[in-house]
Amino acid sequence: MSGILTVTFQAGASGGWRIVRNQAVLGEGLPTADRLAMYGGFPNKDVAAAFELHGVVSHPRYATEQELARLRPLSAPLGRAEARCAALIPIGKSEDWWRLGQDRRRAVFEETSRHTARSLRYLPAVARQLHHCRDLGGPFDFLTWFEYAPEHADAFEELVAELRSTEEWRYVIREVDLRLEKLD
Amino acid sequence: MSGILTVTFQAGASGGWRIVRNQAVLGEGLPTADRLAMYGGFPNKDVAAAFELHGVVSHPRYATEQELARLRPLSAPLGRAEARCAALIPIGKSEDWWRLGQDRRRAVFEETSRHTARSLRYLPAVARQLHHCRDLGGPFDFLTWFEYAPEHADAFEELVAELRSTEEWRYVIREVDLRLEKLD
Repeated sequence: MSGILTVTFQAGASGGWRIVRNQAVLGEGLPTADRLAMYGGFPNKDVAAAFELHGVVSHPRYATEQELARLRPLSAPLGRAEARCAALIPIGKSEDWWRLGQDRRRAVFEETSRHTARSLRYLPAVARQLHHCRDLGGPFDFLTWFEYAPEHADAFEELVAELRSTEEWRYVIREVDLRLEKLD
Repeated sequence: MSGILTVTFQAGASGGWRIVRNQAVLGEGLPTADRLAMYGGFPNKDVAAAFELHGVVSHPRYATEQELARLRPLSAPLGRAEARCAALIPIGKSEDWWRLGQDRRRAVFEETSRHTARSLRYLPAVARQLHHCRDLGGPFDFLTWFEYAPEHADAFEELVAELRSTEEWRYVIREVDLRLEKLD
């Protein structure tokens, strides 16, 4: 119980991040907007938003104890001064994925696609936070969020391209790629 | 994406089930009420309720492909005419549980506690539906729901007692046991 942090992403005329790319990678895209606000809690309904998404920071779904022991000390916090680039990549997976047994999903996620192993190589340069939203009934299953310094932008592109080439991504049916720059 | 069914349990003066027991097993209990309504969708805010809980029917979290292949054909639907007894057992687990790696949670759930294997022996007599609510930020992590004919009431008590004796239950920090009888 508890331990759940709700996070809202609200796109519109205000917010601490400038949207520099908004690309529909798979399926329907998201409306264009100038800025993105990211904050704890549920969407502020008094703000006119181009779109708003929310998810929760929840418990690990595939990582083993051993993987967590490697991930946790290497993971960087959000909000580092040098991390002036960010990516918000909302993702939806197919019903075929969600009907699989846990063993099969784990095998595709890690043993075949090496999701955690690949990501580890980019830590701590890329800070990451995963927001779950499938159980919230939203239009996506995950809102993935990354922060990195400009000198790691190429490395981040490499990671994204690698993940998109994996077996896991054959179950992705909707993906939008938003890139952001921090405003002063 | 999609595939998510929201279910509300609303206790008060109306509803198709009479509440015949309302017992705090671990931690805080729930207010007393005469009846319980169970319906698809979010809580109806126009109804004065003693309490209302909602959760989502979501994907399997621990069951393997092999276990699902045994579970799915044996699972009975809700709403059988003879299933005049029901149980709503909301459960909350500790932060210690949620911080564990997936491999460790799986091991406690099945290899040690034999949750699925034990439950299989009571199918199809006991129909069951699991509602997840941890990601919804509610006061419980799960709302477990069972329906059975009066002649299987003893068997159901046996299953509940067995599960409460397992290692998995050492991570349960809140549990309320509501028993219900169908109204005509």
